[in-house]
Amino acid sequence: MSTPSQHHQHDAFRPAESAGPEGGWRAHVHEIIFGIETPAGRAFDIGLVVAILLSILVVVLESVPAIGGPHADLMNGLEWFFTLLFTIEYAVRLATVRHPLRYALSFYGLIDLISLLPTYVSLLIPGTEALLDIRILRLLRVLRIFKLSRYFEEFTRLGEALAASRRKIMVFLAVVLMAVLILGTVMYVVEGPENGYTSIPAAMYWAIVTMTTVGYGDITPKTALGQAIASFMMLLGWGILAVPTGIVTAEMTAQRSGRRTPLRSTLRCGHCGSGGHEVSSRYCRNCGTALPEPARST
Amino acid sequence: MSTPSQHHQHDAFRPAESAGPEGGWRAHVHEIIFGIETPAGRAFDIGLVVAILLSILVVVLESVPAIGGPHADLMNGLEWFFTLLFTIEYAVRLATVRHPLRYALSFYGLIDLISLLPTYVSLLIPGTEALLDIRILRLLRVLRIFKLSRYFEEFTRLGEALAASRRKIMVFLAVVLMAVLILGTVMYVVEGPENGYTSIPAAMYWAIVTMTTVGYGDITPKTALGQAIASFMMLLGWGILAVPTGIVTAEMTAQRSGRRTPLRSTLRCGHCGSGGHEVSSRYCRNCGTALPEPARST
Amino acid sequence: MSTPSQHHQHDAFRPAESAGPEGGWRAHVHEIIFGIETPAGRAFDIGLVVAILLSILVVVLESVPAIGGPHADLMNGLEWFFTLLFTIEYAVRLATVRHPLRYALSFYGLIDLISLLPTYVSLLIPGTEALLDIRILRLLRVLRIFKLSRYFEEFTRLGEALAASRRKIMVFLAVVLMAVLILGTVMYVVEGPENGYTSIPAAMYWAIVTMTTVGYGDITPKTALGQAIASFMMLLGWGILAVPTGIVTAEMTAQRSGRRTPLRSTLRCGHCGSGGHEVSSRYCRNCGTALPEPARST
Amino acid sequence: MSTPSQHHQHDAFRPAESAGPEGGWRAHVHEIIFGIETPAGRAFDIGLVVAILLSILVVVLESVPAIGGPHADLMNGLEWFFTLLFTIEYAVRLATVRHPLRYALSFYGLIDLISLLPTYVSLLIPGTEALLDIRILRLLRVLRIFKLSRYFEEFTRLGEALAASRRKIMVFLAVVLMAVLILGTVMYVVEGPENGYTSIPAAMYWAIVTMTTVGYGDITPKTALGQAIASFMMLLGWGILAVPTGIVTAEMTAQRSGRRTPLRSTLRCGHCGSGGHEVSSRYCRNCGTALPEPARST
Repeated sequence: MSTPSQHHQHDAFRPAESAGPEGGWRAHVHEIIFGIETPAGRAFDIGLVVAILLSILVVVLESVPAIGGPHADLMNGLEWFFTLLFTIEYAVRLATVRHPLRYALSFYGLIDLISLLPTYVSLLIPGTEALLDIRILRLLRVLRIFKLSRYFEEFTRLGEALAASRRKIMVFLAVVLMAVLILGTVMYVVEGPENGYTSIPAAMYWAIVTMTTVGYGDITPKTALGQAIASFMMLLGWGILAVPTGIVTAEMTAQRSGRRTPLRSTLRCGHCGSGGHEVSSRYCRNCGTALPEPARST
Repeated sequence: MSTPSQHHQHDAFRPAESAGPEGGWRAHVHEIIFGIETPAGRAFDIGLVVAILLSILVVVLESVPAIGGPHADLMNGLEWFFTLLFTIEYAVRLATVRHPLRYALSFYGLIDLISLLPTYVSLLIPGTEALLDIRILRLLRVLRIFKLSRYFEEFTRLGEALAASRRKIMVFLAVVLMAVLILGTVMYVVEGPENGYTSIPAAMYWAIVTMTTVGYGDITPKTALGQAIASFMMLLGWGILAVPTGIVTAEMTAQRSGRRTPLRSTLRCGHCGSGGHEVSSRYCRNCGTALPEPARST
Repeated sequence: MSTPSQHHQHDAFRPAESAGPEGGWRAHVHEIIFGIETPAGRAFDIGLVVAILLSILVVVLESVPAIGGPHADLMNGLEWFFTLLFTIEYAVRLATVRHPLRYALSFYGLIDLISLLPTYVSLLIPGTEALLDIRILRLLRVLRIFKLSRYFEEFTRLGEALAASRRKIMVFLAVVLMAVLILGTVMYVVEGPENGYTSIPAAMYWAIVTMTTVGYGDITPKTALGQAIASFMMLLGWGILAVPTGIVTAEMTAQRSGRRTPLRSTLRCGHCGSGGHEVSSRYCRNCGTALPEPARST
Repeated sequence: MSTPSQHHQHDAFRPAESAGPEGGWRAHVHEIIFGIETPAGRAFDIGLVVAILLSILVVVLESVPAIGGPHADLMNGLEWFFTLLFTIEYAVRLATVRHPLRYALSFYGLIDLISLLPTYVSLLIPGTEALLDIRILRLLRVLRIFKLSRYFEEFTRLGEALAASRRKIMVFLAVVLMAVLILGTVMYVVEGPENGYTSIPAAMYWAIVTMTTVGYGDITPKTALGQAIASFMMLLGWGILAVPTGIVTAEMTAQRSGRRTPLRSTLRCGHCGSGGHEVSSRYCRNCGTALPEPARST
């Protein structure tokens, strides 16, 4: 079953139209870098996964003083090597799809681009090259080849459960942010800058640290009144934060037991037109007319 | 569907009776500041949202030393500007409703008033002006205009889930507070003031910090016995704090499946004897015979 | 519905047999201090609640240096006053019940006794008097008078949910403690005393602080390997600690929906003896014999 | 009901074939150290539990400076005593099972071996002897004798719930690790080494500490932007971490209600036409007519 969004992507990734010998070359390369059916296509994808992981490893190791210090030049060189490699790959992808712009603006196309930028930007603003490990997101596409479709399905399920709870979560966040603003301000007034609550934004940061039960301890209430308010906030925070768990769990439980609630036929009574009959019903529950043989639609 | 509480509010917000030309003017202004049907009313509400957000931004920025320091006079001026603006608005609201006192004592009326006080009180007690960002709560009313009714419904649902668990939560809090008092005292005796447990209230604050898993680390057990008791408390605390999550989740799961599972009547068909009909059914779903008037048994 | 345990308690609290004029006096006093039906009995209970709360307030205030320091004598006097008061009450309770020993060994009888001891023990071991706020538990009994029976029912429900999950929780605790021992030891070996992991018990304390997500920060890993193991433990800990929430929530959801799963009659078929019929069944599902009119037992 | 894995273990533990007088001796010893039916077998197991617990106690106490310091020789001696004891036991186990290699490679066989190594390894690498408290895992086998089978069943259930959610948990972990890598890198760039984010691995450690709500506070954001990103991460982290709770809870709820809700056949009674019979029913619960052989439809 292909979802609309998959269709759209497929469209963004479609090969350039083969209108000559050159088109044949482009179709062939397209098959390798976009496809996974041919051995070459599979080898390319595996090579890509390795290159992505290696390039991220370089960035991570470069940041460790004991490694990045003595081997700075090597690391820098490897970083440029991988970025140039991925730049070429990006150019080839653009060259071989039918609608380059549509590809460039697709989700994966944008990630491909963003993954290249940090190295180039670091020429202007030093220090940003570390951000190129955003290319870990490129793995999402390559995962296809590892027969991970069932994992992907789970991923989609999780996403659906969250999406179905979208509005609940927005409301929840709005309530939390209101509470954070008000309680943070109260603590700013009660404790004041001399106890670490240097401004309302700082106090709001503290309020979030407290209500999510992270509790760094870099800012803590010192006065008795502040400690009392903080205690209240912690209990409140736990209550409030039980809500997202409740939302997600209820959604997941419903997803599982969805098969259990009685299946409704899409059938309508031919006599009175009422719908919503259970699939096992034989007579209309509204007017008593015999229903046609129910076609159970999954 | 209008709930009783909505009715009451509506009543508190009803326009002054139009008993002359002056009444016509008041009705017109009422339409603008309370209504959302006319373009003027909608424009007023949007302006109000902007004014509220700006006034809160002023308070927040004023508290940041790097901004509030050099621009103290500007910030203070803006603060007074907004407060006077909202004071006029409050006066007009009072003037144009039929029952000013009822409005003043309604939920939104009280918030309108409380949102004004901090600036005036700060003349007597400096430092309290920051509290005026409680006017964020005024947004609750204004949200109407943004077609957020469905979000509001979710909000009400969350509230209902919590309200339905009210007694469970009270019992839970009572148990937690008893545990906090007793375990806090034990730690006060075991660790003593030399390890930071300076008094029983301080030890209770520590106990709440520990059992809610916030764990600032500003007070920590130093003795082996104290650490053993604290370890026990953390495991206990996790067990205890699984309870509100359980309460909220069970409530939400019930709310969801409540809507889905159709109510079954205990009624049996007089002709074929089959049972399990939905309470709203009028004919047997098995043989089509008319069912007696269904007595909905809760 | 009186449960067996309530019956037992009732028995422990039964008045002394009235075998003469003196018995009449004892029965009368018994009515006052154990009963809540007479105005005197209710007044006694209210007075008791006030006395308990005041005596706890004295203990808490005494521990605060700013209050307990200057007023040490007053506080000490009040503490002895309340302890003597409760000692007399305890003696009268013993004198007026039929089975003093049974009362003394009942749950509430033991709490009554333990609530007295700290003050006397503090003559021998100074500092233990703070422990007398364990008398907060005495409130459990007195709560009867405040029409809190429905809250009590909720309390019992929570207790039942936990009790039903007893074995699951024991297994869970055993697994957690094994993980704590092994992972704590690993960290003791990896990080060593120089980084704060001074002994295996200290490292186990740290492991519990980490896996319960309390995270004081008084002991933290300093080496890269230690931080990697700690990161693994945190993710593991979250997974493990989702378990008690799952246990409690599943139990509560089941409790709620318990009314939904088909009610089973305790009836057995007169012909084949099979049980477990639904209350709405009219014929034995095993042998087809007509069942007697089902007596729905709640 | 013996599961396949139990069967396999049983096979690994089968006694050596008794093909002579020597075989009889080995069978007898096998009965003692593997069996729990004979008094000697039970006594052996109890002795083993005591020895395991004592040997762990020795390791734990040895690590405490106040005890391990003055009594280092005694502790060391006891440690070697227990290790030699368990080495002999291991040799005897190998000698009396039919397939020594299969035993050595079985789960319990490997634990038996690993439990011995630390003491020997400590001759080469001092400090590793503490690791021998991994022999706590040996208790898992010995628990049989304490009639803990029902606890074991719960343990298996918990394990099943987790195993059933295996793929969901893998996907979840992958998402968390991607988020940790990206957000950790962002914080490394924003805050930099001067604020404690000395490398990307250190920043990832911080990100895990934050998103699991442990929050040690050994590394905390100092800049306003860093605090804003951290606040976002905490809220996100809570959302993300509600997911494993949701997974486990949904699984447990399903496990529970799976056992309770009787399977309904889609069959209808041929006489009265009523449906909704349990799959195990043989006669119509409504009219008593014999039902056709129920075809259990999953």
